[in-house]
Amino acid sequence: MYGKIALEECWAIPENFEAYDPNTLAPPGVIGGNLTENLLDIHHQRLKQMNENGIDLMVLSLSSSGVQGVTDPAKAAALATLANDRLSAEVMKAPTRFAAFAALSMHDPHTAATELERCMTTLPGFVGCLINDFQAAGSDGNTMLFYDSPHYDPFWSVAARLNAPVYIHPRASTPLIHSQMWSGRPWLEYSALGYANRVNMHVLGIITSGVLDRFPALKLLMGHMGEHVPYDLYRIDHKLNRARFPDMPMRKDKLVSDYFGTQVFITTSGHFSTPALECAVKQCGAEAVMFSVDYPFESIPNGCVWFDEHVDINARYKVRIGRNNALAVLPRLMEGPHGLKMFTPAEAGVGGLGLRKGDEGEREFGMYNKNWSKRMTKVVPEDS
Amino acid sequence: MYGKIALEECWAIPENFEAYDPNTLAPPGVIGGNLTENLLDIHHQRLKQMNENGIDLMVLSLSSSGVQGVTDPAKAAALATLANDRLSAEVMKAPTRFAAFAALSMHDPHTAATELERCMTTLPGFVGCLINDFQAAGSDGNTMLFYDSPHYDPFWSVAARLNAPVYIHPRASTPLIHSQMWSGRPWLEYSALGYANRVNMHVLGIITSGVLDRFPALKLLMGHMGEHVPYDLYRIDHKLNRARFPDMPMRKDKLVSDYFGTQVFITTSGHFSTPALECAVKQCGAEAVMFSVDYPFESIPNGCVWFDEHVDINARYKVRIGRNNALAVLPRLMEGPHGLKMFTPAEAGVGGLGLRKGDEGEREFGMYNKNWSKRMTKVVPEDS
Amino acid sequence: MYGKIALEECWAIPENFEAYDPNTLAPPGVIGGNLTENLLDIHHQRLKQMNENGIDLMVLSLSSSGVQGVTDPAKAAALATLANDRLSAEVMKAPTRFAAFAALSMHDPHTAATELERCMTTLPGFVGCLINDFQAAGSDGNTMLFYDSPHYDPFWSVAARLNAPVYIHPRASTPLIHSQMWSGRPWLEYSALGYANRVNMHVLGIITSGVLDRFPALKLLMGHMGEHVPYDLYRIDHKLNRARFPDMPMRKDKLVSDYFGTQVFITTSGHFSTPALECAVKQCGAEAVMFSVDYPFESIPNGCVWFDEHVDINARYKVRIGRNNALAVLPRLMEGPHGLKMFTPAEAGVGGLGLRKGDEGEREFGMYNKNWSKRMTKVVPEDS
Amino acid sequence: MYGKIALEECWAIPENFEAYDPNTLAPPGVIGGNLTENLLDIHHQRLKQMNENGIDLMVLSLSSSGVQGVTDPAKAAALATLANDRLSAEVMKAPTRFAAFAALSMHDPHTAATELERCMTTLPGFVGCLINDFQAAGSDGNTMLFYDSPHYDPFWSVAARLNAPVYIHPRASTPLIHSQMWSGRPWLEYSALGYANRVNMHVLGIITSGVLDRFPALKLLMGHMGEHVPYDLYRIDHKLNRARFPDMPMRKDKLVSDYFGTQVFITTSGHFSTPALECAVKQCGAEAVMFSVDYPFESIPNGCVWFDEHVDINARYKVRIGRNNALAVLPRLMEGPHGLKMFTPAEAGVGGLGLRKGDEGEREFGMYNKNWSKRMTKVVPEDS
Repeated sequence: MYGKIALEECWAIPENFEAYDPNTLAPPGVIGGNLTENLLDIHHQRLKQMNENGIDLMVLSLSSSGVQGVTDPAKAAALATLANDRLSAEVMKAPTRFAAFAALSMHDPHTAATELERCMTTLPGFVGCLINDFQAAGSDGNTMLFYDSPHYDPFWSVAARLNAPVYIHPRASTPLIHSQMWSGRPWLEYSALGYANRVNMHVLGIITSGVLDRFPALKLLMGHMGEHVPYDLYRIDHKLNRARFPDMPMRKDKLVSDYFGTQVFITTSGHFSTPALECAVKQCGAEAVMFSVDYPFESIPNGCVWFDEHVDINARYKVRIGRNNALAVLPRLMEGPHGLKMFTPAEAGVGGLGLRKGDEGEREFGMYNKNWSKRMTKVVPEDS
Repeated sequence: MYGKIALEECWAIPENFEAYDPNTLAPPGVIGGNLTENLLDIHHQRLKQMNENGIDLMVLSLSSSGVQGVTDPAKAAALATLANDRLSAEVMKAPTRFAAFAALSMHDPHTAATELERCMTTLPGFVGCLINDFQAAGSDGNTMLFYDSPHYDPFWSVAARLNAPVYIHPRASTPLIHSQMWSGRPWLEYSALGYANRVNMHVLGIITSGVLDRFPALKLLMGHMGEHVPYDLYRIDHKLNRARFPDMPMRKDKLVSDYFGTQVFITTSGHFSTPALECAVKQCGAEAVMFSVDYPFESIPNGCVWFDEHVDINARYKVRIGRNNALAVLPRLMEGPHGLKMFTPAEAGVGGLGLRKGDEGEREFGMYNKNWSKRMTKVVPEDS
Repeated sequence: MYGKIALEECWAIPENFEAYDPNTLAPPGVIGGNLTENLLDIHHQRLKQMNENGIDLMVLSLSSSGVQGVTDPAKAAALATLANDRLSAEVMKAPTRFAAFAALSMHDPHTAATELERCMTTLPGFVGCLINDFQAAGSDGNTMLFYDSPHYDPFWSVAARLNAPVYIHPRASTPLIHSQMWSGRPWLEYSALGYANRVNMHVLGIITSGVLDRFPALKLLMGHMGEHVPYDLYRIDHKLNRARFPDMPMRKDKLVSDYFGTQVFITTSGHFSTPALECAVKQCGAEAVMFSVDYPFESIPNGCVWFDEHVDINARYKVRIGRNNALAVLPRLMEGPHGLKMFTPAEAGVGGLGLRKGDEGEREFGMYNKNWSKRMTKVVPEDS
Repeated sequence: MYGKIALEECWAIPENFEAYDPNTLAPPGVIGGNLTENLLDIHHQRLKQMNENGIDLMVLSLSSSGVQGVTDPAKAAALATLANDRLSAEVMKAPTRFAAFAALSMHDPHTAATELERCMTTLPGFVGCLINDFQAAGSDGNTMLFYDSPHYDPFWSVAARLNAPVYIHPRASTPLIHSQMWSGRPWLEYSALGYANRVNMHVLGIITSGVLDRFPALKLLMGHMGEHVPYDLYRIDHKLNRARFPDMPMRKDKLVSDYFGTQVFITTSGHFSTPALECAVKQCGAEAVMFSVDYPFESIPNGCVWFDEHVDINARYKVRIGRNNALAVLPRLMEGPHGLKMFTPAEAGVGGLGLRKGDEGEREFGMYNKNWSKRMTKVVPEDS
């Protein structure tokens, strides 16, 4: 599919790496190349792969845990400002190919709101923000700040007013909880399980505490095919028993599932599973799901080969998930320096006997002469 | 679900029964009551069951084979006029609950076009037309008139201009083909298999002959979950090999599957199967599927219990399939005497902890206290 | 479906209730009657509902957190012994209708192994054991004992040798973690989310630490449609990167998904969702899934109406999930006092035009005269 | 997947080509090379592609319409004998890679039974038979002989006694019916639609006439994902109304769907659609579905890339569909000169972090370092 938009795509600044060495996170074999270099790069290796794999635009965000890992409020705010300034400048070098999610210090809702407003109104290139789960605080980093109490309404209010979707991305545990639950089994702490197990709690906390009801224009995004939630929506709805929990603030006439596709949206980042995608579409509707890769922690060709060739779904759904939903959820992408447009299936090269681009020149193409063993050109970096 | 719209719902006039006795078609046990009486009735038994089962509106059509079974052109035209006049009068007694598909003699495209135009512009209550497969012709009834040649363009032109969708409904075989293929196994000739095996050929003939390309505003409807086609779209697309069939008139840059959800739509009539519905939604999109019962050949409570309670799909898809798609495909339903509106899931009582109507008064409802063993009131006629 | 077997069905002894009042857990409206009474009852209300809803046999287990909530090792062991003795006696009053999972103190693997061996070899009626997630220990209850280190191999060894499947059931958090993560949002702590988020970590810990490799005859059971895991198997397999985690003890030539359906099995307890069931069947195979209700925290008629009437799957899969898989996974159920046999679809009243039992006497039945609005008799307790 | 078995794989003898020129049937682009040559070849191009694409064994059959197209009974019987003799000789050159379905003249049940018995007991290499829909008879070829009357019981009796499954393959229409229904739209007559529309009628005729009840050991096979039937099983079961059709001979206590997976089996030949496969598995069970390509009318690499890489289903189901079901349904394949064995997922290279073969030598492999953009070697013939 041509024209894909990807939303959970990481980028870093050297100041990020004080906290961790990205090359400890993933072996070179999967991903292609040096993870640190890939995080720092935007316009070279990354853009080349986007071109080779049909990705029109990436929305970039600062790599996790980013600002949420900085326990000192002043340092956290400074890192956010620094990262946002730099990201704006980078994005504006190629605004039809990149956009930005703001990094925010969440130590204080007013600080977060002010920086978000600055990004959305003053700095060009921003289309929303991305927060890495709870804000770590306290001298030992064991204090977790969650954003589901009315205390954070000043932040949510600005996000809603500016039509800035808030992507809630996972992060690692605190040292205290790590020692309680994950020590001896660190392989489960991170992206295999622990990330989802914590961030789904935070997002459901925001939903059930009524934030989305108080701010009906607010939109939340979750990666990794919804962090387990779509599969469990029946049980979540069923067990959030208002007779047992009369003080739960969410609207009494709604179910958690009602928010998916209207105010909560999920992406395919790092979860290239057709059965999971199909379950999510059945539970939430195709309008609730958006393509993403999770570069550079995932391979761009892998994510694109999966979505373009393995996912067998009707052409309109493919184009919605691959592109159009992102434009509906992040309307800034259709404005100003980005100026993207909705695609028909034909424009995206999906369905039909469309004329495809290629080094053999344009030619008729179609299922009847589809050669499944020869792919559309999807190039993997040489060093992978 | 409240507010359902049903599109393949039969009605008859006594003149219909010269050709057949409906009570030979279905045993009383399934359907409830006397089939002949049920066909003749609109405002009593039928409306009562609609009320009890959450059907807002039925689009009525003359029972198959109807005008397509009349081999004499003049008699066929006269039957169409008679039936349309009567149906308009009946529908206008309760235009918020009923609408009409025109019956047409297809012996001649101009006759069909003229009568369709009369119905859509002069007679109130019409929202499209329904044709029962091929028009039988010839003294022995063995001539089959198909509508996929340019000869019928005058008819398609009017249907497209008037935004009148054309429902292609099945009918029985000719005596000649019956004797060749179905004798000795009549149980396969009709709704179990033969209906679909013939009508899918006719609809695909219309598509592949380019009628939908010549008239891009034209819309076709098929019942019975698409008459086998959604399941086979891959194979159909794959095998309509333009290199082998260079003279096939359909646009060279399209696949048959591209028309589903844009110009071809299917209904659930008489095919209350969740796996089939899910396959159709995956292949064609939820916007291509519309609820229908096929009353009185199917039971209204059966179709509604299935759709309302058994089909486990997200709330927006349920409301689209149950109601909103019909309004998009048949826009006349939102105008004039019908005046229906799109529903949100909450308005349709789908999802959420909505306040439900009921003789116990309004009360909170939701999945957490869903009592699956007690249904919404769905009453079966006493004599069933 | 007749002949269903249910595996996550709770029972309690009064000594259980020192820790909690069950009536705080669920409102009377959903479940029918008084939760405390329902937990204590086996042969009256419970059996009556089993009869009315086609459940042949329930495997009973002590209600969570049970022995895992007792921080004192001696008291924990005593509670296990007491509960097992009583449960054996109760089960043997009707061994064709009930069987037992042993409760075990997990403070020490040898204590656990000894009690499991006593139950499986001396006390009649036991077919495996059920453990409520981590064993709480320490004076403040904040110490969590997990069973994924080789320290617990003496217990796993006995379970494997005796062919005693181990059901890993969820439990509430520790006070410390509750205060860190769940305070202010207690509705998420329990069955809606927190249960799964913790128990899936524990089960995956056991799998990835190589316990199932060291004991290939060992079988684990998980409830609630697999505690999020089937939906995420792709991501779990993908992210358990051996290059990053070379010390993860699980066999290097296996994926976590390889254990589902061979050594890990899931049940439908409290997760009556058709899309989730379908996703699980696709990911793990129908042989990996077993019916359960989670009585009395869930309604027996609700679970049975869902499984019998809403789940639209082929007849053999329905009978496997509803009954036969349980006999394959828990072979003791086919022996001794229980003596259950595998059922064909016809014997289970699934598929076919079988002769059904009923107060109208035996009669032909089938889909063609299925009256969807009248159910098989499924009676809800009067007080619900 | 290694070790696949394919069941609907055509072969021809020059005597076949009197009736038609295969090169009119498919363009060279899709299939690779010259269709006539590919039909005649067994041990060169065909075997090479099997090796390159993980196919262990093909069951070969004479290309349609074969003997069923020969209207003269004596000539038909002679062609069957000739073809079977030659095919046995060819298969026995490499019996671990090829097996044979007998061609049969169906003009007379005794002739068919005698030739089938000869093939299954005297000629080595036969594992069942394949019949191309109705037997054309009469001087004009317009007489269609169907095999669903008791007149054909002598044939069915022998097939059941010898445990020889009968594959019912489609064929073209008669001249009479072609002129009635398909003239002007020949692209729909053949594999895109007409084949399925006729052969599904014949197979359902055999089922509903009670042949499978009279011969419970008899097994039928259908290609092309079941020729529309799995999608429509609900409607077929529902509409075969015994009250309306009391003379339908099929057992009164069964539904058509009950035979799928027990006596009727389907293959994936020429229908490489994941949604259709999933619908079939849900409706019929994974044990009812078997891999096939339909070579040389379909491309071996296309079918294998689809099945091996695109179909996202648990490992046991993949190996059943790809291999093991064929051994269960055609037990001769496990005997005598063929001597094939059931495979575990690991033996088939499915699931797990198995050691894969390859020119880089054996190496660890798994999802975490899966490079989706580089396939297992699947070579397409150079001339394609």
